Amino acid sequence: MQADHQQSHYLAHVLRYAEGTELLVFNGRDGEWRAVVEKITKKGVSLRATNRERPQSPPSDLIYCFAPLKVGRLDYMIQKAVEMGAGTLIPVITQHVQNHRLQIDKLKANAVEAAEQCGILSLPEVRQPMKLDALLVEWDPERALIFCDEAAEGDDPLPALSKLTREKLGLIIGPEGGFSAAEREMLRAAAFVTPIPLGPRILRADTAAVAAMAVLQAVAGDWKS
Amino acid sequence: MQADHQQSHYLAHVLRYAEGTELLVFNGRDGEWRAVVEKITKKGVSLRATNRERPQSPPSDLIYCFAPLKVGRLDYMIQKAVEMGAGTLIPVITQHVQNHRLQIDKLKANAVEAAEQCGILSLPEVRQPMKLDALLVEWDPERALIFCDEAAEGDDPLPALSKLTREKLGLIIGPEGGFSAAEREMLRAAAFVTPIPLGPRILRADTAAVAAMAVLQAVAGDWKS
Repeated sequence: MQADHQQSHYLAHVLRYAEGTELLVFNGRDGEWRAVVEKITKKGVSLRATNRERPQSPPSDLIYCFAPLKVGRLDYMIQKAVEMGAGTLIPVITQHVQNHRLQIDKLKANAVEAAEQCGILSLPEVRQPMKLDALLVEWDPERALIFCDEAAEGDDPLPALSKLTREKLGLIIGPEGGFSAAEREMLRAAAFVTPIPLGPRILRADTAAVAAMAVLQAVAGDWKS
Repeated sequence: MQADHQQSHYLAHVLRYAEGTELLVFNGRDGEWRAVVEKITKKGVSLRATNRERPQSPPSDLIYCFAPLKVGRLDYMIQKAVEMGAGTLIPVITQHVQNHRLQIDKLKANAVEAAEQCGILSLPEVRQPMKLDALLVEWDPERALIFCDEAAEGDDPLPALSKLTREKLGLIIGPEGGFSAAEREMLRAAAFVTPIPLGPRILRADTAAVAAMAVLQAVAGDWKS
């Protein structure tokens, strides 16, 4: 098989692999394979798959919706979401969003790198940004949308999560400034939305994201025994 | 009251506050107070407290033990731990630790800044680094120590957490390379240690830290209703 332009450059000029070097490859469909660098030409690098090392893991079904943060924290948030099992990432534009100049290609590269680093063989999908109202209109009502609500009652997210009846899951995390009152109302009005609190302390948006995914995966997602 | 040297510099020369400017102050004992800049001299800034805005919150009792990561991720890890409710932070030196040149003063400043940003009024304590064996010998056996074990059985941390009988809690997070086999054995041999898994995917140490604190606080800590 032929590595694409960017991959060829990386293999030949950054990693400086030679013909005969072994490596692990995955394409998101056929599992993880041991492969060998067969030929390096000006056209690119060709690889020969030799042995399947791991079967393809099922793609993560969790949809992760997030208001884009400033760049440094956004990169971090994307990496963490992929590690925690987000299969689809949707940037959501809300009233208090700080970062309107999203570079979706960079987000995608970041998500794929996070998957590679954590040995996740299915490639996360990064969708185009949507406005919050459009997200709610187009949302599959069979899929629960967990909403981290700073104004939710109490501190404990477990009671609400353990009452979820929908099997398919999504999570939405607001911007650093939180959702506006109108946005909170719109979210709470949807039958598929479940608001949860996240403890007694104010959390930054990127902390809330990891914390919410942990309790969600543990109670109703793919950590559950 | 007199602001100390560093605080005076920050108020007068970074924030450029003038006499008469109002601000919020806390000392970790008396709650949060509204105060006013009374006098700025070469000796420093003096403040006058005017009104108590919030009562003192009880200090977080959770002890957070962590193998120091490389600097960028370490700063992040400290911030997140404080947000998630760590009251005491103990750097633990293990076999695979990458960062041996800890600057405890910087860690302290970082922890205090995280507390300020999140409106936590009790100042987190950062202890001197300890070796893992010394930590276990000196550990209060009445306090549970939750250990994120990559080799723990299953994916679900909730069953083990819901069986905890000790009320006081601690958490230990290993370095990026994980604990060594001997260290894992030493941890698992202690009666106060509870190993937990964190889902089916490999998590980076800083992700595992936030995820573990979320499930721990929700099941057995101060998020619990």
